[in-house]
Amino acid sequence: MEILDGKIELPKGFVASGVFAGIKRSKKDLALIYSERLANISAVFTTNRVKAAPVILDMERAKKGKAQAIVINSGNANACTGEKGIEDAKSMAKKVAEVLEIEEEDVLVCSTGVIGVPLPMEKVLKGIEVAALSLSKEGGYDAAHAIMTTDTFLKAVTVKFNVEGKDITMTGFAKGSGMIHPNMATMLSFVLTDASVEKATLDKAFKNTVNRTYNMISVDGDMSTNDTAIVMANGMAENKAIQEGTYEFDLFYKALEYVNKTLARLIAKDGEGATKLIEVNVINAKTENDARLAAKAIVNSNLVKTAIFGEDANWGRILAAVGYSGADFDVDKVDIYLKSAKGEVKVCENGSFFAFDESLAKEVLKEKEIFIIVDMKAGEFMATSWGCDLSYDYVKINGSYRT
Amino acid sequence: MEILDGKIELPKGFVASGVFAGIKRSKKDLALIYSERLANISAVFTTNRVKAAPVILDMERAKKGKAQAIVINSGNANACTGEKGIEDAKSMAKKVAEVLEIEEEDVLVCSTGVIGVPLPMEKVLKGIEVAALSLSKEGGYDAAHAIMTTDTFLKAVTVKFNVEGKDITMTGFAKGSGMIHPNMATMLSFVLTDASVEKATLDKAFKNTVNRTYNMISVDGDMSTNDTAIVMANGMAENKAIQEGTYEFDLFYKALEYVNKTLARLIAKDGEGATKLIEVNVINAKTENDARLAAKAIVNSNLVKTAIFGEDANWGRILAAVGYSGADFDVDKVDIYLKSAKGEVKVCENGSFFAFDESLAKEVLKEKEIFIIVDMKAGEFMATSWGCDLSYDYVKINGSYRT
Repeated sequence: MEILDGKIELPKGFVASGVFAGIKRSKKDLALIYSERLANISAVFTTNRVKAAPVILDMERAKKGKAQAIVINSGNANACTGEKGIEDAKSMAKKVAEVLEIEEEDVLVCSTGVIGVPLPMEKVLKGIEVAALSLSKEGGYDAAHAIMTTDTFLKAVTVKFNVEGKDITMTGFAKGSGMIHPNMATMLSFVLTDASVEKATLDKAFKNTVNRTYNMISVDGDMSTNDTAIVMANGMAENKAIQEGTYEFDLFYKALEYVNKTLARLIAKDGEGATKLIEVNVINAKTENDARLAAKAIVNSNLVKTAIFGEDANWGRILAAVGYSGADFDVDKVDIYLKSAKGEVKVCENGSFFAFDESLAKEVLKEKEIFIIVDMKAGEFMATSWGCDLSYDYVKINGSYRT
Repeated sequence: MEILDGKIELPKGFVASGVFAGIKRSKKDLALIYSERLANISAVFTTNRVKAAPVILDMERAKKGKAQAIVINSGNANACTGEKGIEDAKSMAKKVAEVLEIEEEDVLVCSTGVIGVPLPMEKVLKGIEVAALSLSKEGGYDAAHAIMTTDTFLKAVTVKFNVEGKDITMTGFAKGSGMIHPNMATMLSFVLTDASVEKATLDKAFKNTVNRTYNMISVDGDMSTNDTAIVMANGMAENKAIQEGTYEFDLFYKALEYVNKTLARLIAKDGEGATKLIEVNVINAKTENDARLAAKAIVNSNLVKTAIFGEDANWGRILAAVGYSGADFDVDKVDIYLKSAKGEVKVCENGSFFAFDESLAKEVLKEKEIFIIVDMKAGEFMATSWGCDLSYDYVKINGSYRT
C-alpha cells in the first residue's frame, strides 16, 4: 500500500471543485464532488435527534446505496431551519442534478456551520453553477478547503494499492474542529475510490472502520446535528467486485481503515484551540466494549484534557475517568503509562501511586503528540481513542463563535 | 420555615471544629463533627468504580444507619492509595473514637484533595487530637472552612421549623469546585439536624432530594472518587420520630430539599473558574427522566458553557445538546428561552430559528445568574439542573492543579 499523507489524488472517474459562493465572508464555502459513473456508497450520520435538513435528506437517499454527486456548503449548517431547511436542501440537490444532468435522487447534500439560520439560497444556487463549471481532476484540494469551518489545516490522505493487477486509488478528505465527539459529530468526511466493491461489503467495511476511527475521537464531548461520513466506490478501476472474506477484502479494509484513521487523527489534532494530540490506548481489557468505554471516557475528560494542556502527569484523573466510564475492570490491576517521542513513563501501578520520575514525565508531556496507555491486565482486548487538550483558546473560540 | 442563608447553626447536641493539621500548606485542613447522641444517618457516595479509601470504609459503616462523628480532611483525597489508604482511613476513625470515647464503628471518614498520594498520617492524627479539643457549638464555620479545596466561598445554610411544638434546626455545609458532575462528584456535603426521624424515612427523603439536587449539578462532567453526602439526625429535638406519609414528613422533606438545593446551587456557582451560574429548567417533558436527561446534557455541554461565558445567545447548541441527551422529544415542538434579572427572551420556537431581539438577549446574558428554559410541549414533567460557564480560568486552574 502506497501512502500519500496530506495528498488528494482523485480516483478514476472522479472530479471535484470548491468555490466561493458568498455564504461565508470571504473564503471558499461550496464544494462539489462528481463521479462519471453511478457509485456504490455507504454513509454514516450523526445520532443526534436534532438532525440538520441535509442529514434528513441524505439518510433517506443513502438507503438505495447509490449516488453520483455530493454538494457541500460551509458557513451555514442548515440545521434547526424547519420545513424551509428541507426544501433548501432539496433545491441544492435539484440544482446539482440539473447542471450535471444526473438524477436528483443521486445527489447527496452536506452542510456545516452556524445552526438556526436559513441558507442564502440565491447565493448557494449560483455557487453550484460555478462549482459545476469548475469541476476538475485537481479540484480535490479546492473542495477540501471549501468544506472547512474553524479548521486550521487541510485534512487529506490518499492510498494506492493493487487488486488482481488493477491499480486502486482511495482518497479521503475531511473537516473537523469543535463539537467533535464519539458517535460522529461536527465532522464531514468523504472517501472516494475507484475500486469495485459490492454494496453490502462496502457497508460492512465502512461501518466497522468508522466505529473504530471517527467514533473514537472527541474534541469537546458535544455532538453535532450535521455529521456525515460518506464513501463512494465507482468501480472504474474495473477490478472484480470485492467481496467479504477474500484476500482482496482484507487489502481494501486495511486501506479504508488507514484513510479513516488518518482523517480521524487529523480531526482530533485540529480540535478548536488544541495544542496537543492525545492518543489513548486501553489494552488488555476484558472485552472490546470495556476498552472502548474507558478510552472514550479518558479522551472526553475535561480534567484530563486540561492536565495534558498544563503538561501535568495527573494520572489520578485518568484513573478516575476510567472509573466512571462504565467499563468493567479491577481498579487494583490498572497500570498507566504516559508516552511521547521523548520516552515512556509508568505513572500508576496496580491502581495506586507509584514513585515515578517527575522530570521525565514533564519531558514526555512537552511533546505535541501524547500517548496515554492504560493496561487493565484483565483480558486481551484493546481500543484506541483520539482527542486533544483543552486550552484557553478553546474557550476563546467558543465563547464568541456565533457573533 | 425560617431560612438563614449562608449561616451554620449547629442543632442540639452537635459540636464541630476545623483546624490546621499541616496536610495543606497553610489553610485549615481537618474538620470534626460530633453528636452527643448516636444519630440516625443516611449517606450517598460516588458511583465511580474508583473509590477513595474513606468512601470504601464509609459505605460499609453506613449500612447500619448510625453514626456519631465524622472526620474530614482536605488537601489529600486518600484515593488510589491501595491497602495503605484503607488502613489510614481506619486509623483516622480509630483516633477519633479514642479521643471522643465512642465506638470506632460509629465514626465516618471523608477526604478530598489530590489523588494518589499517601496521607501524612502523623500530622493527620495529631490534627484529630487538636480538632477534638476544639469542638464547640460555634465550630461549624471552622469545619466548613476546613473541608474546602479550590472553593472560593463558604457554602452553608440553616433552616428552622416546628414539628408538633418542637423546634427543629437543620444546618448544612458543603464543599464543591472542579470535577462536579451529576451522580455525585468531588463534593462533600454534611447535613445535621436534631429532628427525630425514622431511619427508613430519613433514607427515602435524603436519596430523593439528593437525586434532584446534587445529582443535577455539573461543573466539568468529571466524577470524582471521593464524593459523599451525609445527613445525621440525632433526635435531640425530642419530637415524635417522623414517619413517611405524614404532615411532619412533608415539612421535614421540604426543609431537607431546601438545604440540599441551596448547597447544590452554591457548588455549581463556585465551579472552578466560573463567572456565571446556569440554571436549566426543562418543562413539559413526556417523563421526568426525559426532562432530567435533557437538563443534564445542556448543563454539561462545553459548547453551551463557553457560549454563556461569552454571553452569546447560541440556542442551536442548547438544542443540539437536548438532541444527543437521550431524551425522547419532538424537535419541532421545542421552545427555548433565556432569562435573567434583566428579563426573558424567547430564542427558539418549534425547534427552529426565531427572530429574537439580539440586544435584549445580550442584556439578559450579562447577568451572573442565567436561566435556560426548554419547553418540550410534550407532557407535564420537569427537571432542573445547575452548572456554570466554562472560562479561561477553568483551564488555568486545572492545567496545573497537581503541581
